[in-house]
Amino acid sequence: MFTEQEKEALYKIIYTRRDVRTFLSDAIPEETLMKLLNAAHHGPSVGFMQPWNFILISDDKGKERLAWAADKERRALAIHYEGARQDEFLSLKIEGIKQAPLTICITCDPTRGGSHVLGRNSIPETDMLSTACAIQNMWLAATAEGLAMGWVSFYKKSDIRDILGIPPHIEPIALLSVGYTEHYPSMPILESANWEKRRALKDLIFNESWGNPIV
Amino acid sequence: MFTEQEKEALYKIIYTRRDVRTFLSDAIPEETLMKLLNAAHHGPSVGFMQPWNFILISDDKGKERLAWAADKERRALAIHYEGARQDEFLSLKIEGIKQAPLTICITCDPTRGGSHVLGRNSIPETDMLSTACAIQNMWLAATAEGLAMGWVSFYKKSDIRDILGIPPHIEPIALLSVGYTEHYPSMPILESANWEKRRALKDLIFNESWGNPIV
Repeated sequence: MFTEQEKEALYKIIYTRRDVRTFLSDAIPEETLMKLLNAAHHGPSVGFMQPWNFILISDDKGKERLAWAADKERRALAIHYEGARQDEFLSLKIEGIKQAPLTICITCDPTRGGSHVLGRNSIPETDMLSTACAIQNMWLAATAEGLAMGWVSFYKKSDIRDILGIPPHIEPIALLSVGYTEHYPSMPILESANWEKRRALKDLIFNESWGNPIV
Repeated sequence: MFTEQEKEALYKIIYTRRDVRTFLSDAIPEETLMKLLNAAHHGPSVGFMQPWNFILISDDKGKERLAWAADKERRALAIHYEGARQDEFLSLKIEGIKQAPLTICITCDPTRGGSHVLGRNSIPETDMLSTACAIQNMWLAATAEGLAMGWVSFYKKSDIRDILGIPPHIEPIALLSVGYTEHYPSMPILESANWEKRRALKDLIFNESWGNPIV
């Protein structure tokens, strides 16, 4: 059983968590880093397969190569936006990888646990969904520890595999920049940049079947 | 900034969270349910697309049809296991859907936010990963509220679409049984059933590149 204070702590952490793009160079204490990774490792996984690995990149050379891959993809993506939307897109910061003292590449091994992992036999992508749950645990732990985290999702997976020596059957699920920051946003960056608005929760809930509104 | 107590609360909730399969029939207070859904809605999402919807199924008829779809898939999956492993598989409980007062089907709409969602333009499955992060927020909130949750991943998506009237382009990501329980497991059910063991975290961490152990 949890106390009111414990419940409130969880909600406060959930509501405070942000995707952060600017970092200080200060190193992360090893003990704190292990708490983050242990939180991730206690995420749920389909058939208890624990499909994740964590590659820790703190070397400048490695971070620069990852930043190069992300920037290349960013320039390619920019071509799909036109006019003011392209300017807005290009103004979004992505230097986070180089600034942050640490990048964590979290991967998913679809072969772990053998050929007939419980549940994954029915829905194969549950291994990736499990890995995302692990990321969310890590993100909340980072928030609680006063750390900032940014999920980089601009890259070609083959570039990341080449840079980090990841075997072809392993999925690089996310590049996560982690570090301290002076600018912890109070609302999502894409909301304050007028890129997207938060939707009303009520409109997202259906009663008994799709499209049937709640009262 | 978070206090030591707040940090500890988060880790305690993360370590306590379990996938639960047996439920009491007691209803969930509406206020508590809204807290769970609001926690999910504050998950991160690629390009802030918030691709999720929540279908609440509390009607017995709806739950029975979902349980039928899950049981059908369970019997099909059992054929892939042989001998003792098949007996073990069939002994795992899946009556949770019928027992729990509520099933939440969480879906992902890949068309939300238009044709060029930031980040998803690069890695399309980031919409599903976002939805999984929302599920993890909801799961932690349920744990903190003294509720049990079980993620059902045995079904054919087309059955779930038929039963709940979900349009063909929308992904049913998970069926989540939610309710109170008398049997909150202290370790993962699949661990106590000797189906799988928890891996050593240290072996899952690599330094700078794949396969390079940490000291």
